[in-house]
This record gives sequence, C-alpha cells and structure tokens, in this order.
Amino acid sequence: MTGIISSDGEKRMVFVSGRAHPELAKDVARELGTEIVPTSAYDFANGEIYVRFGESVRGADVFVLQSHTAPINQWIMEQLIMCDALKRASAKTITVVQPFYGYARQDKKHRGREPISARLMADLFKTAGADRIMSVDLHSSQLQGFFNGPVDHLWAMPLLTDYVRTRVDLTNVAVVSPDAGRIRVAEQWAARLGGAPLAFVHKTRDINVPNQSVANRVVGDVEGRSCVLVDDLIDTGGTIAAAVRVLLEAGAKDVIVAATHGVLSDPAAKRLTECGAREVVVTDTLPISADKQFDKLTVLSIAPLLARAIREVFDDGSVTSLFEGNA
Amino acid sequence: MTGIISSDGEKRMVFVSGRAHPELAKDVARELGTEIVPTSAYDFANGEIYVRFGESVRGADVFVLQSHTAPINQWIMEQLIMCDALKRASAKTITVVQPFYGYARQDKKHRGREPISARLMADLFKTAGADRIMSVDLHSSQLQGFFNGPVDHLWAMPLLTDYVRTRVDLTNVAVVSPDAGRIRVAEQWAARLGGAPLAFVHKTRDINVPNQSVANRVVGDVEGRSCVLVDDLIDTGGTIAAAVRVLLEAGAKDVIVAATHGVLSDPAAKRLTECGAREVVVTDTLPISADKQFDKLTVLSIAPLLARAIREVFDDGSVTSLFEGNA
Amino acid sequence: MTGIISSDGEKRMVFVSGRAHPELAKDVARELGTEIVPTSAYDFANGEIYVRFGESVRGADVFVLQSHTAPINQWIMEQLIMCDALKRASAKTITVVQPFYGYARQDKKHRGREPISARLMADLFKTAGADRIMSVDLHSSQLQGFFNGPVDHLWAMPLLTDYVRTRVDLTNVAVVSPDAGRIRVAEQWAARLGGAPLAFVHKTRDINVPNQSVANRVVGDVEGRSCVLVDDLIDTGGTIAAAVRVLLEAGAKDVIVAATHGVLSDPAAKRLTECGAREVVVTDTLPISADKQFDKLTVLSIAPLLARAIREVFDDGSVTSLFEGNA
Amino acid sequence: MTGIISSDGEKRMVFVSGRAHPELAKDVARELGTEIVPTSAYDFANGEIYVRFGESVRGADVFVLQSHTAPINQWIMEQLIMCDALKRASAKTITVVQPFYGYARQDKKHRGREPISARLMADLFKTAGADRIMSVDLHSSQLQGFFNGPVDHLWAMPLLTDYVRTRVDLTNVAVVSPDAGRIRVAEQWAARLGGAPLAFVHKTRDINVPNQSVANRVVGDVEGRSCVLVDDLIDTGGTIAAAVRVLLEAGAKDVIVAATHGVLSDPAAKRLTECGAREVVVTDTLPISADKQFDKLTVLSIAPLLARAIREVFDDGSVTSLFEGNA
Amino acid sequence: MTGIISSDGEKRMVFVSGRAHPELAKDVARELGTEIVPTSAYDFANGEIYVRFGESVRGADVFVLQSHTAPINQWIMEQLIMCDALKRASAKTITVVQPFYGYARQDKKHRGREPISARLMADLFKTAGADRIMSVDLHSSQLQGFFNGPVDHLWAMPLLTDYVRTRVDLTNVAVVSPDAGRIRVAEQWAARLGGAPLAFVHKTRDINVPNQSVANRVVGDVEGRSCVLVDDLIDTGGTIAAAVRVLLEAGAKDVIVAATHGVLSDPAAKRLTECGAREVVVTDTLPISADKQFDKLTVLSIAPLLARAIREVFDDGSVTSLFEGNA
Amino acid sequence: MTGIISSDGEKRMVFVSGRAHPELAKDVARELGTEIVPTSAYDFANGEIYVRFGESVRGADVFVLQSHTAPINQWIMEQLIMCDALKRASAKTITVVQPFYGYARQDKKHRGREPISARLMADLFKTAGADRIMSVDLHSSQLQGFFNGPVDHLWAMPLLTDYVRTRVDLTNVAVVSPDAGRIRVAEQWAARLGGAPLAFVHKTRDINVPNQSVANRVVGDVEGRSCVLVDDLIDTGGTIAAAVRVLLEAGAKDVIVAATHGVLSDPAAKRLTECGAREVVVTDTLPISADKQFDKLTVLSIAPLLARAIREVFDDGSVTSLFEGNA
Repeated sequence: MTGIISSDGEKRMVFVSGRAHPELAKDVARELGTEIVPTSAYDFANGEIYVRFGESVRGADVFVLQSHTAPINQWIMEQLIMCDALKRASAKTITVVQPFYGYARQDKKHRGREPISARLMADLFKTAGADRIMSVDLHSSQLQGFFNGPVDHLWAMPLLTDYVRTRVDLTNVAVVSPDAGRIRVAEQWAARLGGAPLAFVHKTRDINVPNQSVANRVVGDVEGRSCVLVDDLIDTGGTIAAAVRVLLEAGAKDVIVAATHGVLSDPAAKRLTECGAREVVVTDTLPISADKQFDKLTVLSIAPLLARAIREVFDDGSVTSLFEGNA
Repeated sequence: MTGIISSDGEKRMVFVSGRAHPELAKDVARELGTEIVPTSAYDFANGEIYVRFGESVRGADVFVLQSHTAPINQWIMEQLIMCDALKRASAKTITVVQPFYGYARQDKKHRGREPISARLMADLFKTAGADRIMSVDLHSSQLQGFFNGPVDHLWAMPLLTDYVRTRVDLTNVAVVSPDAGRIRVAEQWAARLGGAPLAFVHKTRDINVPNQSVANRVVGDVEGRSCVLVDDLIDTGGTIAAAVRVLLEAGAKDVIVAATHGVLSDPAAKRLTECGAREVVVTDTLPISADKQFDKLTVLSIAPLLARAIREVFDDGSVTSLFEGNA
Repeated sequence: MTGIISSDGEKRMVFVSGRAHPELAKDVARELGTEIVPTSAYDFANGEIYVRFGESVRGADVFVLQSHTAPINQWIMEQLIMCDALKRASAKTITVVQPFYGYARQDKKHRGREPISARLMADLFKTAGADRIMSVDLHSSQLQGFFNGPVDHLWAMPLLTDYVRTRVDLTNVAVVSPDAGRIRVAEQWAARLGGAPLAFVHKTRDINVPNQSVANRVVGDVEGRSCVLVDDLIDTGGTIAAAVRVLLEAGAKDVIVAATHGVLSDPAAKRLTECGAREVVVTDTLPISADKQFDKLTVLSIAPLLARAIREVFDDGSVTSLFEGNA
Repeated sequence: MTGIISSDGEKRMVFVSGRAHPELAKDVARELGTEIVPTSAYDFANGEIYVRFGESVRGADVFVLQSHTAPINQWIMEQLIMCDALKRASAKTITVVQPFYGYARQDKKHRGREPISARLMADLFKTAGADRIMSVDLHSSQLQGFFNGPVDHLWAMPLLTDYVRTRVDLTNVAVVSPDAGRIRVAEQWAARLGGAPLAFVHKTRDINVPNQSVANRVVGDVEGRSCVLVDDLIDTGGTIAAAVRVLLEAGAKDVIVAATHGVLSDPAAKRLTECGAREVVVTDTLPISADKQFDKLTVLSIAPLLARAIREVFDDGSVTSLFEGNA
Repeated sequence: MTGIISSDGEKRMVFVSGRAHPELAKDVARELGTEIVPTSAYDFANGEIYVRFGESVRGADVFVLQSHTAPINQWIMEQLIMCDALKRASAKTITVVQPFYGYARQDKKHRGREPISARLMADLFKTAGADRIMSVDLHSSQLQGFFNGPVDHLWAMPLLTDYVRTRVDLTNVAVVSPDAGRIRVAEQWAARLGGAPLAFVHKTRDINVPNQSVANRVVGDVEGRSCVLVDDLIDTGGTIAAAVRVLLEAGAKDVIVAATHGVLSDPAAKRLTECGAREVVVTDTLPISADKQFDKLTVLSIAPLLARAIREVFDDGSVTSLFEGNA
Repeated sequence: MTGIISSDGEKRMVFVSGRAHPELAKDVARELGTEIVPTSAYDFANGEIYVRFGESVRGADVFVLQSHTAPINQWIMEQLIMCDALKRASAKTITVVQPFYGYARQDKKHRGREPISARLMADLFKTAGADRIMSVDLHSSQLQGFFNGPVDHLWAMPLLTDYVRTRVDLTNVAVVSPDAGRIRVAEQWAARLGGAPLAFVHKTRDINVPNQSVANRVVGDVEGRSCVLVDDLIDTGGTIAAAVRVLLEAGAKDVIVAATHGVLSDPAAKRLTECGAREVVVTDTLPISADKQFDKLTVLSIAPLLARAIREVFDDGSVTSLFEGNA
C-alpha cells in the first residue's frame, strides 16, 4: 500500500498530582518507581486556579491524583481543570485517582429538591475528560454506577484488618457498626476476622415527632468483648464518639475504631481523644495535618495499594486480582 | 411583528400502558379519571415486539406504565420500544412509570467484570427517549442517581404501615430486617410504628472458606413480641422464610411479613405458606397471578399512589408533598 | 523526560459469547484458533440476567457474539448487559457480533406512531458500550447508517450462490424475488449466476379497500425453468411457501429457496415441507433446533465468514477485501 | 408560595426561509396565512455565509425552510447556520423543512470506505440545533431512522396520483418502475390507481465482468397500455429516458413520467424532451429554473401540503391524518 | 379522543440565589417585584456544600444567580450543585445568571498543556443542567461560543458611559486602553462618548529574552486631556495603576478608571488609592466588601439591568432590544 | 489465560486530502516522505459530493487535509463527508487539518440573532468524527476552545518574521495593526522584531449615528519608518489597502504587508497593487490562483510546518516544542 507511515505502538504512563496532598503523591510515585511530572499550579488573586504541565503528555496514559480534602471545592476544581488541560494536550487516556470520593455522602435525594452531588461529580469529571475513576472504599458501592465508564474500586479493608488483627484477641472480639446503615460493611469485617459476632448502635427517633430526644442503644452482644467499631470515614467524630461511649456503657472491654478515610474535621481530634477509645486507625487517603493528630491515632499508608492498582491498569492487568478472596 | 402565528399553550396528558400488568393500568386510569390511549402491541413469530399508538400523542405529556415482571426482558424491551415510538411521534415529555425497577438489585459490581445493570437500564431508557422515571421503593435510593434526569421516587411504606398498624398491638411489636443490608429500612418502619425496637438476622459466613455452612441468628430482642419482618421485595422467599423460622425459634409471638414488591417467583408461595408467618403483605406493583397467591397473602393496591403522583407531575405540583412528614 | 514509564503496546483479542447459539460460538472460536473466554451467565428466578467474565478483559479488543433468536428480547438484553460489563471492565474496544440483526424489519415507520426499532437497537448497543457492529446480510443496507460508528456488513450471498451453483443447471435458471421489495437482492443473485433472468411475485391489493382478497401473480418469465427463490430471511415461511406455489403453477420446473437467515418460526417447517420446493438453503446465523428441521433443509456454516471478518478487524485489515468483486 | 411570577403560556410560530427557493417560501407562507420573518442572508467575498433574523424568535416554534437544490452544499450549510442562530436566539423548537432531503441517495455504503452522507446530514442538523425534520418522499423510508428525533415524512403521491388519474384511462394502464430498486413505490401507485398491473425495467449486468455491455428489458406486460413510469426523483434523466424508450419498444401505448422531485440536472430537459414521453409530472420541492423547463413538463405545487403539515405540527395535531387511507 | 387530560399551560418563573452575593440577589428580586425562593445552603465540616430548595420548582423557568467572587471555586461549585438539584426537581428550564463569568480570562491556551478553563466552565454548567447562561461584559465575546446553547450577553457599558458622561468634559477627553488586547472595547467607549480620541499603553517586552525589564509607554495623544481608562475588570489593580501613572506622566489632565467587574483583589484598594486616579467606577456584579472599598470608588448597581434581562427572557421578549443602538 | 489472541500494536499513519488545494497536499506529503492515499472524489450532477478511499484505513491515524477556500461550503462539506467515511471505515483517530479555519471570523454574536458559525464548524467536525483539529494562526485564539478536543494551533509568525527580517532595516521599523482588534498580534510581531515600536489605525465612527462617514488615523509614531502592517488574513484587501495609504500619508518610509492567510477575494489583487505597498507577504494555506497573483506578492510555503506538526502528533511528540521561545 501507498501512503502509510508506521511506527511501534509503545505505551507511556504519566503520573501527575494536584496540590492537595503532596506527601501521598510522592509516596505513590516512589512505589511506582517513577517521578511526578512537574506541574505548575497556583491561584490567581481572586482564587482562580492556573495549571500547566511541564512536559508533553501526548499519547500517554495519564493518572491524575488529587485528595478531596478541605478546601474540597478548590481541589476538585483543580483536578477538573487538570483533566481539561490533559484532554487538550492529547493525552490518550485520563484516569482520575481520588482516594476519597468527594461528595460521596450526597449519593441520593434524602428529601425532595436536593441534588445528587455524587452523581454530579462523576458527570463533571466525565465532561472534563476523565476516562476512568480510581477510588478507595466508596461510601456506597452504588457510586460505581454513577460514572459512565470503568471505576476501579479499591478496598482498604484488607490493609485495616491485617493491622487490627495484630491488636486484638480474635477469640474475644465483636465488630460493631455505628449505625444501621453500615452493618453490611461490619458484616464483611466480621467475616475477615474469623466470623466474629456483630452488633450495631440503634438511634431511636420517632420521625413523626420532630425535635424529640434521641436515644442510642446497642443491638447485639458486646459485653466483655473488644469491640472493633468500623466505618468508611470519620468526619467530625460525633457519631463515632457517641458509639464508643455506648459500647463502653454496655460493658465492652475496650474499643478500637477503624475507618478508611480520616476526614477528621474539627472537633474530631478532641472528641476521639476524650471518648475513651483505645485506638483510632485510619489510612492517609486524606492528608492528616498536625492539628488533626492525637495520641491514639494510627495512620496506615495507602500508597502501596494505589501504586499497585495504577500499575495493573497501565499494564492491562487485573485490579480485581488485588483483592482475590475478598469478595 | 410580522410572520407570527399564535395559539394558546394548553397542556395535554396521555396515559399508555404496556402489556405486562393490564389490571394495574386500568386501576391507575380509573383513579386518574381518564382512559388508557388504545395501543396495538403484539409479538411477531420470532418474538420481536410491534407497538403502535391509536391516537396522536404530538405535544402531549405522556406517562408510559409497565410492570417489570417475568418475562422481564420482554416487558422492558416493550417499554423501550414504546418510548421510541413516542419520541418519534413528537410527544413533548415521556415519563416512564415502572412501579418495580427491573434489575435494581444489580446496582453495583459485587465482583470484578460484572455489569451494573441498574445503571444500564437507566441509560437505555434515556436513549429511548425517557425524560423522567417514576418508581416505587427503589432497592437502593442511590438508583435515583443512575438516571440523568428527574426520578420521582414514591414510597409505599405509608400504605404498608397504615395497614400493618391495624394488624398488631403496637405496644408489643418489633421490627426486623431479614439481613444486615436492609436495616435502614427497618429503622424507618420502627419510627413509623411509634419507636418500636429493632432487630436483624445475621447470616454468619466466613468468606475465606467457600461452601462453609451458614448459620442465622437474631441480633436484637424479639422474644414474646409480634415481629414485623420488612423488605423491599420478596423474590423466591428463601431469605424471608428462613428469617421467619429463626424469629419463631427465638421466641417471637408471631410474624407478619411486609414488602412493597411481590415478585414471588416459584417456590415463594409454597415457602411462605409453610414457614409459619401469620400474614404476608405486599402491593400490586407486580401482577400476582393465581399460582402465586396463597391463603395468608394480602395485596394492597398501589394505583391510588401512582395516580396521585402522575397528577402532581402533570400539574407541576410537588410529589414530595405526598410524603410530607415521612422523611 | 522525567516521570515516564513505558511498555510495549501489544494488542489482545478476546472472544466471548452469549447463551443464544453456543454451537456457532464454538465454530467461530475453532476457526479463529482460540477459545471462548469463560463467562458466567444465568437467569434469576424473576428472569433478570446475570453475567460475569471469568478473565480480565482490560485493554483487549473484545468480540461479543450473540444470535438474535427467540426469545429474542432475552438474548438482546443479555448482549447489552455483556457490553456494559465489558465497558466497566476497561475493554479497549467492543465489537458486537450479531449475525442476524434483531428487529431489522422495523427499519421505518410504515404508519404514524410506530417505533423504528432497528434504529433503537443500534442506539441501545451504542449506549451499552459497543464501538462497532458486525452483522450478516442486513434486511436493508440502510441499517448501516443507524449505528453511529463502523458497521462491518458481511455478505452470505457468495456462500449461498457457490452452493446453489452446484445444484442447478445455470443455463436454465431464473432468479425470483418473493415480493416487490426484494428485487434488488434478486438482481444481485441473477448477476452472480451469470446473468440469469429475473422475476418477482406481485401481491395485488387495493389499499383503499381494506380486507379485500389478495391475488399473487408472477411478473417475469419462469416457465420451464429452475427457479431460485431468494430472500434475506425466512420467518414463518408464509410468503415463501405461497411464492413457491405460484411459481409451480406458473410452470416453473422446480424451485430452490435460498435465504441467509433461517428464523423458521412455527409453522415454517410444515409450510416449507408441503409447499413443493425442491430444497431450502439457509445458513446457521440463527440456531436451527431439531423441531425446525425438515428433510429438504440444507444448512450452511457461517462460522468461517465470521471468523475471517473478526480476524481482519483485529488485524486492521480490510473486511471489504473479503468480498472483492462482489459489489 | 413566595417568589413565583406567572404568565400565560401562549405559543408562537415563526416561519423563516433560506435563499434557495424563495417562490416556494412565499407560497407556503401564503398558505399558512402568515409572512416570512425577514432574514438577512448574504455571502462574504470568500463564500462564507452570513445570516441574521430581523425579529426576536425567543420561545417560538420555528420552521426553517430550505430547498436542497444546486449549489446544494451552499444551501445545506446556510440552513445549518440558520439553525445555529435560532438555537442561540432561544427558539423553543426548530423544525428543519427540507422538501427534498439532500444526499438522500448516499443512504448506505455501496462499497467499503464510503460515507453514509444521508446519516451525516441528519447528525449535522441535530448538532446545529434541529429538533425535528420535515421532508417529502424520502429516497428510502429508512432515512426516517437516521435522525434522532421526530421526522414528519410527507407523501406527494396522493397529489401526483390525483393528477395522473385525470390524464389516463385507468382501465388500460400499467405502472412501471424504472429499475428493480423502486418497485415497492410502483406497487403503491398501482394500488392507488385501482389495482393496475405492474412492470419494471431490468438492467442485466454480470457484476463479475466489469465493463460488460448492459441490456435493459421490461419484466411484466405493458403492450398496448398507457404506462405510468414512477420514481422519487429525476436527476439527469438518463435512466428514465432509457426506460421510456424500452417501454415504447415493448409496445406501450404511451408513457407518462411521474416523480416527486425534479432535480433535472443538465441534460435532463433535453433527454426527457427527446425520449418520447407524453408528459413529465413533478412537484416544485426544488426550484425549476427556466433552463430546466420544457414543453411536456407539468409542475404541481407542493406548498399546500407543506403548509398543512406545518400547521398540524404547530397545533399538536396529527400529520398522519393527512394521509389516512394512504398506507 | 379518549384518554386525554388537559390543563392550561401557565408559565411560572422562579428566582433563586447562591450565597456569594446576597445583596445583589435582594436587589434583583426587588427589581423583578418578586421574592427569592427560600433555599437551604450550608457547608459540611469538610467543606462539602449542601443545597435544598424550600418550594417546588417543578415545571418552572428558574433563574439561578451566583456571583463568581472569592472563594470562587466554592461558589461555582455551589451553583453547579444548585443546577443539579433543579434538574432533578423537574425545573422546565434553568438559566445560570453569573454577572461575572469566572475563569473568563483562561479563554485560550497561551502556551501548550494549559487548560481552557472558560470552556470547561461552560461545559460543566451544561452537564449540571443549565439551559442558558446570562452574563455581563464577557472578557472576550468569543466566550458566547463556549456554551452549547443561548448566552444572553448583557452590556454594562451604557450604564458606565452614562455615568462617566456626567463626570468629564466630553470635548476634552481621551479613551485609553491599559494594554494592546482591550483596544476594541476602548474603541466602543470612544464611539459612545461622541468620537473621543483613542490611546493605549504599550508594554514593551522582548519575548525572546526572559526576565528583561518591561517599559510602558502611551501610544496616542493624551496630553492635557481627561483620560477615561477602561477595562472589563480590575483584579489586583497592578496594570491599571501603572497605566494611570504613565498617563499622568504623559501629561494627562486627570484619569477616571471605569470597569464593569470590580474583582479588587488585595492590594487593589491600596494601589488604586495611591496611583493618582481621580475616580474609579465599577458595578456590583461582584460583592465589594468593606476592606475593598476606598474613597475614590464609585459603585453602580447592576441589578436593574439583570432584572430587565431576566424579565425579557421569561416573557420571550428580546434581550437584544435592551441594547438597541449599542452595537 | 484462555481465549486470547495477541499481536503487536504497530501504529500506521495515513494522509488523505480533499480537492481544494492539491498542490499543498502534494507538498505536505513530500515533506512527510509519504504519498497521499488515493481517494475518489467527485460531484454528482446536482452538486452532491461522493468520496471513497482507495485503501483500507482501518486502525490508522488519519490526517485529512482540506483548504477552506472558495467555494468554501463545498470544501467544508467534502471534508465532513471524508471524516464520516473514515469513521465508518474504522480509522483509529481522525485529525482534521484545515490550515485556514473557515468561518473563523464569525466567532461571536456581534448582534442578536446571529449564529456563531465558528463554533458550529467545530461541532460539525466533531459530529462527523474528527478527534483533533490542526490549524494555522486562528483569527482569535479563543477558537481553540470551540472544539471539544485537542486543537493543534500552529504559528506561521516565525516563518513570516524570519522572511520579513531579511527585507527591512530592523533599527528603523514599526509594526502596525490595521485596526484596534489585532494589536495583540502586532505586539507579538514587535517583540519578535527586537522590540520595534507599535502603532495602529483607528477607525473613528460614532455608533449612535449610522451611516456617518468614517475617518482613519494612525495612533502611534510611524514617520520615516518602514512599516510592517500585520494581520491574520487578507480578504478583499479593503482594510489593508486603506491602512497602507494612511501610513504613507502619515509619513511612513514604506510599507510591507504580512499576513498568514491569503484569501485574496476579488478585488484584492487590484487594491493591493494600487495601494502603494512595497511588498505583500502571505503563506499558501489557501491556494493562490493565477488571477489572485500580482507583482508584489510573495508566497511562502506552509507545507514544512504542517508536515512537522503532523509528524509530532503521530509520534506523540510535542507540537509546542516547534514554537519554543515563541510565546
């Protein structure tokens, strides 16, 4: 045939990061054995964000890391703008890596005339150019269905359970959900901890009588047991701290709190310190600044998991295989 | 100005129905005080569906009812084809009324390489021309976010609780979830029944050891109480029947089963008859043929709720107002 | 440059199949020299379909075979769900292989307020994730334009004419269309059979007088000739059987019926057996179960053609070249 | 409720036209009893088109007429640009009225690596903002399925047959298709003319032997009859003129040619004049300039049909009803 | 016809506002003679925004006002979320009113691998559900083309020139652009001020020699004249203050600065106070907090213009007519 | 794994061209060291365009060159149709190379009810299948944002300045913009010519008084200097010729006109010949037929720039790098 120029089809991976959580970006890059492609990013005086990549990304499979921490709208917008720049710079594929999925809790209309912000975020990233989303422990698994494309849903639970396993006597443990909505997750924890008994905290409230006082009580047997109180995230810590107190009142031996995402908005540090928990374990999907830290806090590194998943995606391997036996 | 022809902007509503559940269509039409627009619909010898509307739908707000019962793919396809015909016949808006949302249970990837069929259905209806979806008691509220447009999410719970309230002694009742994933719904029931205590059935299973036998046990106190076992749907009835048995073994006085959607696939009738439940209450979002019925089954009519919601949508009223005080 | 990880860009092909026509899938796989990637697919009690692929398809060019046979809505939905699962599992490209294009006959509005189901099907597959459609002998060539992307339109006519050529005396043959709408195809057959004369059956009907009886007559000269009666598909066989009779009455020596798609809905076997045709030739684009078979039926294998086309697509070769000289 | 401003919802229709066929625009406006909204439209020196509407179209149902005559790309582009201007000027709906659908003949890939220009046109108009297309006698009915929205497909056949009926002895007439591909249309003509016999001209050609000479022969009986030779359009007139000659040679009494669209590209006038036809009947969906006219040409006005259809669309009436009994 | 329910088609307008600039919202509502529909909007501890409307918006034409001031990403995200809530609450149309278009200055790639954030914003609003954008004095008029739908582009220039006209001797005035890129706007000012002479400040810089010092000089004659220095916005005031100084050095009698958008990021107040300008005139498209104000600042109200435009849009009038004679 | 067929992922480039400017296509192909893939393209009698590619383009990165010269709508439509054919022939990527971007000047609504044709063109190409646009010296840089994908914006300025540098004494030169809207470009020229002084021609016109006579005057100092009058394109030459005259009247030593795109619509040749310019320099982005040429015209070849950019795109290199130091 005439008129044909050929070349090999070598693939290139590029890893870039927004400004929200530079330590995590460095850790992931180190695990990947690469460097972060240098990126100019700064704010104009009125708050508008400017972004520019320092090297060509044409034809590359690009992974854009951003941690959706406060000021969260700022960082989400930065990641959207980065996607736009990558799209216009002819990146071949764009994978949005958001270890914590911002606005995940607004995943339905609780009442009329509310937004479904979690779906909106998925659509905004699609519009900006994202081909794929990678995220850790979504608030609800249904979020996978909000994005019109592949979602690589990573699980921090093996990381957390492997750690907790070293901290408790597995023969005398109970897994507890802080409310009725998260018991499914607690059930998975229970299974991974060898079939531990399950309990949850029931918030009694008559929805027909507004402003009525609310009472918490433990449903399930926790007396004398080490309780592992599990959730996907800890925000201001109010629900968790209350649950710890109820458990101790119900005769629990002690309580370890475990969650993937340490949002830890003020006054979480104070509340968790004072509530009587023996230890609070989270990962660093979100940056944990000095003022958020406290004595009993343990932070596990999420970077190895992210790096392995990125590598599998780039190599067309199987992300599922990272969690074999963990269904 | 020249060249302008004016006319008033009167609105027209048209109500049509697929072939899956003609009784429900008649009931809704009667409640609306209208008639179903005549529609030709039949199957060709190889199973292809043909549809044609008997009157002009141009410029009308059309509501298309279909019940997603077995053979479910047949009826979903018929509703898609009806949407296509309405779109091409210049309907102004198309509202898909699917009292039971087919494939709602496949709302996430439980494991790698699975579809998210519930999102796919939302997208298929959008593609076929649907502007809005109306549905009753979605399996998970997040399904609202799967459709790119308004979703009118109706609640059958007031209908069910109003009935159950007449059947039990509210001072000695417990609300029970058949598994860990539906406790949130049970919690809402408990609140509507005046703050009744809550329990759930815990399926113990070590997910690392396949094929291991599973044990069910009740978490929460049910002894001597009338139990209301609640779920969004009853399919083959296996989980529900097992839960009834466990509750009776745990000393429950008696058990009423209440669910919105009576899928009642074989052998549900047999199982529910034999399990010891005092009564099973469902609505007729799905047709309940003679072979699915049994002595203890009570079927409540969903038509008044659908008709009121359709009327609110057509009149630009508030569907939310139908459920005031029910958040 | 910093921050770049490279890898070679090797391509992978994956071949999967729905449950409608397992023999064809096996034949195509054998011709390709590969195996079908194992897929779990089954129906829930209420008819909902579940699908999961047994191996990673990430980054692969996937070909999804399904035969649109009865129950056709079931199998189309299964193929749509497979596409959704492939899209979410990061397949690089998805080619829908539907040897017979379901709903192809509803390719226009014959009257007002009808759907154009054939366009709807194209859009549904696009929505589910399909990048390309491969099909054999479309009912009308315009269907290519219904899909927003490449359509590989394969021709079974060379396969059929090569066979028929061995069965008739080419010097005394006539090619006949069973009605006025398919004469273009008959013309192509006539050309391939060395310029044979052409005829068609004219259905006389005054459309202004409904329910008037209809008379068929042959337009063109068939007396004493072996007639090859050609169509794209045979469904219930009514039109074809009537045409055979009219031809024999008009003095045809004998009649061979040739069509690509053997839908053969009941009572096709009976009709075709009794109508007096010497032989009926079809391909196996659709499964031909035992009850559809009859003495005079010859079934040619379509698998070699599909396999060659799939191979050309994967290798970025030319599908057109498979039919050189066949315009 | 607070914060609500109301107003009646009166509808406005606006009728605008491109520059291709001003006489038709005037005729349609007169039939509608309105005036064409004044529009500035001219070409810049390098051929770029400028368009601006002279009055507000905000909130109006706008009908944009353009006749796809030569220079056809110029006029299609003008209509696209008009749609864009209407969209950006907040028209409520935009109906593209193209009595002759440009590029309709490229409705499929005849060979590999061809475009499907007819589908492309549908997509271009959608992109430019068109909500609906109105067209007369599409080259193939499948074109309705190329547009993603309503297509009002008007039929000029009643207009043509009503005229022809006055020109022939219906007891001694035959309807003839000029080639194998248009017999379906001829069949409809035959029915409307009281069940007249049918014939077609068969172009014999062995496609395996390029450049072989081609022979035309009549299939069907035309001897002694007045033949009505029907087609959707007449372009250069080559096929039609040849068919007229073959019919006369085959003993036809005389021949009337009838077609909806008089493209009449050079040398159609000469050919049709010389071929021996008694009369050639077309409509004015395309402008017929002085140099295209000839003695035996009769031009029927399409404006009443267009105006009635526009009125039905605006009034949310039924376009189908204009053709009742014409299926 | 059967099965039709009719109702009048009354239109409703709803006006809602985000939290960025409540004074402007109140002023616009007052001008409209309506009230702002009550809206709950607040931030969660981690910065996520929650929004809910207090009344039904079903079927209404909704106008959503937000001022894109700092923290700009916060307010843009809030407006996007409001659009999503409106879309899901069945608003008929959604008009985004953003008097200042955030990110307008990033309207092109100045260098490779930059985003085009202004286009991204248009697409994000489209995705969130916006049907139309209304904005004042876009940084570049091309931004109108970034949104796929109608953009109502309002001009504050008549408001500003009417005021400035009262402050200068029109026979001895010059209009000055602060740099080469905005002279087109200055030219329009000059025309509106009766054909005043024009000048601009030329920033000399050799782009081949980075970091070279830059010199400003006035091109055009300003000596002895009152200069009106015009721009679309004033951000930190650096360019403007420098231009004022250069003008005064070049012999200008005095300088009035006029701009539509008073971004006035720190240290604008200080710079503008000290630069020697006689007066600085802006509108309140953006809130001007106490710390941004200074002695010589005059703020004109933009609310009447916005209210008139909103009214025209709702009434299907002509926004263009508000600026007749201002082309 | 089972069922996997692998192959290397070699990339292929294909270069095709429309009929508008065959010389440029040949030059680009020669620079690329390849041949143009043979393409059949011709017009039917009624002006419809037919296109077919002579070789398989499946899986190839295709570059489609067309020069948007008169008859411009013809050539744009041809390029759209080529894109459609490439998309349906399974090209992997389609890059539209339009050295001059047709309709670029209609990049905003100058008045109400105008189109934004430049955005429309971007959307039409996207719809037809274009993945990327490559163009030279856009009329406004904002056009980059009109296309939803990568735009490779090439600069002819280095080519032009390198030539002009050899024709003038850089110590006594001034760069002049022919109107207020193009001064930004003149500023870039001035920088590239070593910091030359800047001037522009001010068209005085009172927009409140239509039809008033217009006066041009030079703003900036040009006396005794060689003026380089720069623009992006020269159409009929009216503005440019008037500017040359004004400059000479203002005492300029001589004037060289430089522009990227030589549209040169009649009577440009006459006007430019007579206006007194010393030389007119353009590139051949548009064909310059014999009747457009004149003595003082110099045409530079754009082919090397296009070829280098195409090569960078194909090789996933950096187009930005072609202009390093040229920001």
